[in-house]
Amino acid sequence: MTTELMLPAEIDADALRRALDGRWMAARERVRDLLGDPRLLSRPDLPLDEQRRRTLDGLRAIAATDGPKLMFPKEYGGLDEVGAGVSSFETQAHADLSLLVKCGVQFGLFGGAIRHLGTAKHHERYLRDTMNADLLGCFAMTETGHGSDVQSLRTVATYDPATEEFVVTTPDADAAKNYIGNAARDGRVAVVFAQLETAGETHGVHAFLVTIRDADGRPAPGVGIADAGHKAGLNGVDNGRLWFDAVRVPRDGLLDRFGSVAADGAYSSPVENVNRRFFTMLGTLVQGRISISGASLSATKNALTIAVRYGCRRRQFKAPDADSEIVVLDYLAHQRVLLPALATTYALSFAQAELVGELHDVQSEAADEQARRRLETFAAGLKATSTWHATATIQACREACGGAGYMTENQLGALKADTDVFTTFEGDNTVLLQLVAKTLLTNYQAEFGELDTIGTVRFVAEQVADIVIERSGARGLVQRLIDALPGTSDEETSLLSREHQISLLAWREKHVLEGVARRLRKGVEAGDDLLEVFNASQDHLLLAARAHIDARVLEAFDTAIATVSDEAAAALLHRVCDLHALSVIERERGWFLEHNRLTPSRSKAVTATINDLCRELRPYAELLVDAFGIPDELIVAPIAQGSAPVTQGSAPS
Amino acid sequence: MTTELMLPAEIDADALRRALDGRWMAARERVRDLLGDPRLLSRPDLPLDEQRRRTLDGLRAIAATDGPKLMFPKEYGGLDEVGAGVSSFETQAHADLSLLVKCGVQFGLFGGAIRHLGTAKHHERYLRDTMNADLLGCFAMTETGHGSDVQSLRTVATYDPATEEFVVTTPDADAAKNYIGNAARDGRVAVVFAQLETAGETHGVHAFLVTIRDADGRPAPGVGIADAGHKAGLNGVDNGRLWFDAVRVPRDGLLDRFGSVAADGAYSSPVENVNRRFFTMLGTLVQGRISISGASLSATKNALTIAVRYGCRRRQFKAPDADSEIVVLDYLAHQRVLLPALATTYALSFAQAELVGELHDVQSEAADEQARRRLETFAAGLKATSTWHATATIQACREACGGAGYMTENQLGALKADTDVFTTFEGDNTVLLQLVAKTLLTNYQAEFGELDTIGTVRFVAEQVADIVIERSGARGLVQRLIDALPGTSDEETSLLSREHQISLLAWREKHVLEGVARRLRKGVEAGDDLLEVFNASQDHLLLAARAHIDARVLEAFDTAIATVSDEAAAALLHRVCDLHALSVIERERGWFLEHNRLTPSRSKAVTATINDLCRELRPYAELLVDAFGIPDELIVAPIAQGSAPVTQGSAPS
Repeated sequence: MTTELMLPAEIDADALRRALDGRWMAARERVRDLLGDPRLLSRPDLPLDEQRRRTLDGLRAIAATDGPKLMFPKEYGGLDEVGAGVSSFETQAHADLSLLVKCGVQFGLFGGAIRHLGTAKHHERYLRDTMNADLLGCFAMTETGHGSDVQSLRTVATYDPATEEFVVTTPDADAAKNYIGNAARDGRVAVVFAQLETAGETHGVHAFLVTIRDADGRPAPGVGIADAGHKAGLNGVDNGRLWFDAVRVPRDGLLDRFGSVAADGAYSSPVENVNRRFFTMLGTLVQGRISISGASLSATKNALTIAVRYGCRRRQFKAPDADSEIVVLDYLAHQRVLLPALATTYALSFAQAELVGELHDVQSEAADEQARRRLETFAAGLKATSTWHATATIQACREACGGAGYMTENQLGALKADTDVFTTFEGDNTVLLQLVAKTLLTNYQAEFGELDTIGTVRFVAEQVADIVIERSGARGLVQRLIDALPGTSDEETSLLSREHQISLLAWREKHVLEGVARRLRKGVEAGDDLLEVFNASQDHLLLAARAHIDARVLEAFDTAIATVSDEAAAALLHRVCDLHALSVIERERGWFLEHNRLTPSRSKAVTATINDLCRELRPYAELLVDAFGIPDELIVAPIAQGSAPVTQGSAPS
Repeated sequence: MTTELMLPAEIDADALRRALDGRWMAARERVRDLLGDPRLLSRPDLPLDEQRRRTLDGLRAIAATDGPKLMFPKEYGGLDEVGAGVSSFETQAHADLSLLVKCGVQFGLFGGAIRHLGTAKHHERYLRDTMNADLLGCFAMTETGHGSDVQSLRTVATYDPATEEFVVTTPDADAAKNYIGNAARDGRVAVVFAQLETAGETHGVHAFLVTIRDADGRPAPGVGIADAGHKAGLNGVDNGRLWFDAVRVPRDGLLDRFGSVAADGAYSSPVENVNRRFFTMLGTLVQGRISISGASLSATKNALTIAVRYGCRRRQFKAPDADSEIVVLDYLAHQRVLLPALATTYALSFAQAELVGELHDVQSEAADEQARRRLETFAAGLKATSTWHATATIQACREACGGAGYMTENQLGALKADTDVFTTFEGDNTVLLQLVAKTLLTNYQAEFGELDTIGTVRFVAEQVADIVIERSGARGLVQRLIDALPGTSDEETSLLSREHQISLLAWREKHVLEGVARRLRKGVEAGDDLLEVFNASQDHLLLAARAHIDARVLEAFDTAIATVSDEAAAALLHRVCDLHALSVIERERGWFLEHNRLTPSRSKAVTATINDLCRELRPYAELLVDAFGIPDELIVAPIAQGSAPVTQGSAPS
């Protein structure tokens, strides 16, 4: 073993759990207390209609709690604690994910759009009913033809000064709103995103409150509604298609915080530039992305809890000269599947806590533009990373439970199916990583204003100016570490040195970013076709975004451990952090070797050290999943029940 | 571009398809003609009972065709063409996978066990009814407590000479047969694997024909049947649990090809050693594994067909100065997701064809023990590789289709859900790779006979003798290439040299295998705990297996291209093979850099060349999926319909 410290035999699970629960522990505990209800378990075995009915019942039950109120201003009956709100949502994600997504649509997307894009008159009229689920609503942004490029939506809202109404129209089938939650069955009103036209001019995408169903549940005049039917998961959510044939919406149906139309049709906006206005509007909705990131981590924790508990109980094959069969989590190969994924789940959870903290602070204080942009970038990157991690880890957990993992009663199938879409909704992950890369390549507007006006702004190739890597103050240390990093990695430095791990990831971030900027600039200066320039570097750009998030996540883990006062818990978390950090370095070792940051022997040592760490952490595996604090009522998988045998892999005594 | 030859603009899709269809093209074409029936499409949206009813109807429809007959001897109404049989099964896998698995259980597992483990009396009595689906059966091997280590099954069949019957008993809940297809609803008879006891002695696992239901569908006396209920996929298959309370089976219910019991209870077997007997019995069932490997590739082809067609039609984001939006498969990132996966699907298909050919020849001729072992090793390795490739690729295809990919109507959800279990049934993939590693480390019995007797045989640590890498004659070239490989990779050699690609993968196979053998031997010689020795090297062992299969698959692709007479098609296949080979090398570049087989600059060139190949193959993407020859009636996803726009990515004209 290359380890430097011996882990204590006794570690307080509560101390670990407090570390994970963080700033909004109380909110998490309140939700945990509510989750003992079997109606909150997913039931993918039920017919579609029954799942939908059940999910609506669940939504009403949640509406009766304080959870949704956390998201809304006090003057309308809310509690205005967004950090606690997102933390509650994350905790609820340990239960039925259809119910979670239905709540996300109702309170987060529909309610959030009214809150953030509307003004006092909308808040006054709608927020209470939205919180109470007396008014059920949809968030109708995505169209069949436009999911990622929502700036190019083609639904039109034309202002008619004669009647002081907007006329909302779907020009063709491709412009129908699609995959809209709450649309197929329950929604009464939709926030519809459409190109605002008035007085013969177009002002870009705005949001409108459109009644889609009358009190009897029939489609409103001019509104077309189709059921999206059965899906790969989340069948409790009634997704549907919506289209509009000259639907008339009163003037005050425009959510007018960022743009309003006077009675005579005159348009005005506090944000002059049409692009900036659009991205400012989108920016206020960042909470949805952050919530999905957290939810995907919660679902991952359910899967790991089941797979680790099973791994600690399941036996297969006898060792020579042994009486009993080997517990499968004592096999290195099994540890290799579950323990690094567990460590990374811890890492992402701490990063998520930091992200939620930033969201809370940005919404609570008068944050500046830069803080908002930093938040959006972090949210985009972490959402992509967390949801991909969820997909991969839940899959690994299913396989680690063999045929048993395929049975619905063991819960992994629903976790897989329900989280699958997280990688492509609330922003397609690849598009989100491009957004991250874009922000990293800052400073472009000043230098490339001219290119911008010819439409380049929509491409990353536009952003090829000198690079200013954005760093928060806390990252000064990182810079010093980078500066101190020798030409090749120092064989003398322990792989378990946190500073060394951080400096490796930070160096990679910096080097990749500089490389892609150089490459883009070269192409633009050579006068190459901009699409070609962008396309030739697209994988490089995505790598820059991933490298940034990898560095950011490790730093968040390290920062979080520093706040843990329980020494034994902190020692264990340091080991978990080592396993996470070295797993990232191992995954990227090809890159580090290519750039002479790892020598071949050092690279092999990374693999050997991960094996050592797996063995060292094996006895703590069950403790580490227990600390997730998922209520027992939600882990009903028969394979995760009963007490684990004491094995050679147990904690030292 | 680093490419050396220009691909022709016009390539004959039929020539490609002929190359893929291979030796049993006619059988594939016959099945394609049958697949235009909408009842053969999966319907995961239907209630469980309806899916099961529908699947049984489908089974009877398939039983009315020649497909199942291909698997059985002529003297009982069969056609005895196993190669054509497996090829038909693979082709049927383009349709509903529940139906496929139900057919696999009935004809392959149940029928196959009777054929391969039984003798003439069993064939005479059962094979016709099995083929016709007049007698529906189960294959009851897996127990709740034993899935991978089936040698340790605990169901017991004790011979009672007084009545000339076996008494089949489930000692406890853990020994119940679990996840058994056809058990919950339709099966009448089960092939039950149990420890045979007679005259106070145990002779290991044997198979028994046990009636589980009477003519009215009620459980037979002493038989317990429970429904396994809803699953993550394959819900048309009625999986269940079976247990036995002193169920009496006539003496001739023993499938006695490899072991029989005389009326007086005397046991005899043509294979004396109990381990060897068990593995000989299992070996005859290799066809199931091969069939699943092929089926997983067919499902992958469906997913790729949908995702590539969508990728050639879907547009998103405008290029600067362009009128229309960009077709998403023109983005490098999208190509990177789909095209290497497509190339590897081609590679695995050619390897699969070779495997099916070996199966056919081994079953048709009097093959020797070595040929059988080689077949089993190849089957185990390819099954693991193909099914993991399917899981990853279908997931990537789902994501590449965004929210649309999540809708059941677009078929990807069912493909994902239904194939998921393939990685852990018919042999857990990790266990199968260990089996491959075990075989690679040959020669152990002679040297370690002694260890063997103390139970080490069940561990790979046993196999630490001098290494003889098994190579078929065809691999002599490979050896010469390895010998010629210089100390570090030659910067002068083109990355597109097939010989160079093959030699890199072959060198890795050899080096990893020698390394792990050395490591195991060292541990054993040092007298370390054998479990520890094994466990410390488990990841290394699995790497040896993967390295072997990687090399094997590339060679199979190269060999197959040599038989393609159409020059244009062969040129395209060479490029596809390059993309596959370099993708493997890129994935493993960390290893190659660690072992000085790639220099850093060379390693970066691999990535750049893959990008070039993606761009070069982009115009042929749709042609390459069309060549899979999946009947249009099975690709009903709305997102895969219509004609693709002509774009900059189109074939040169």
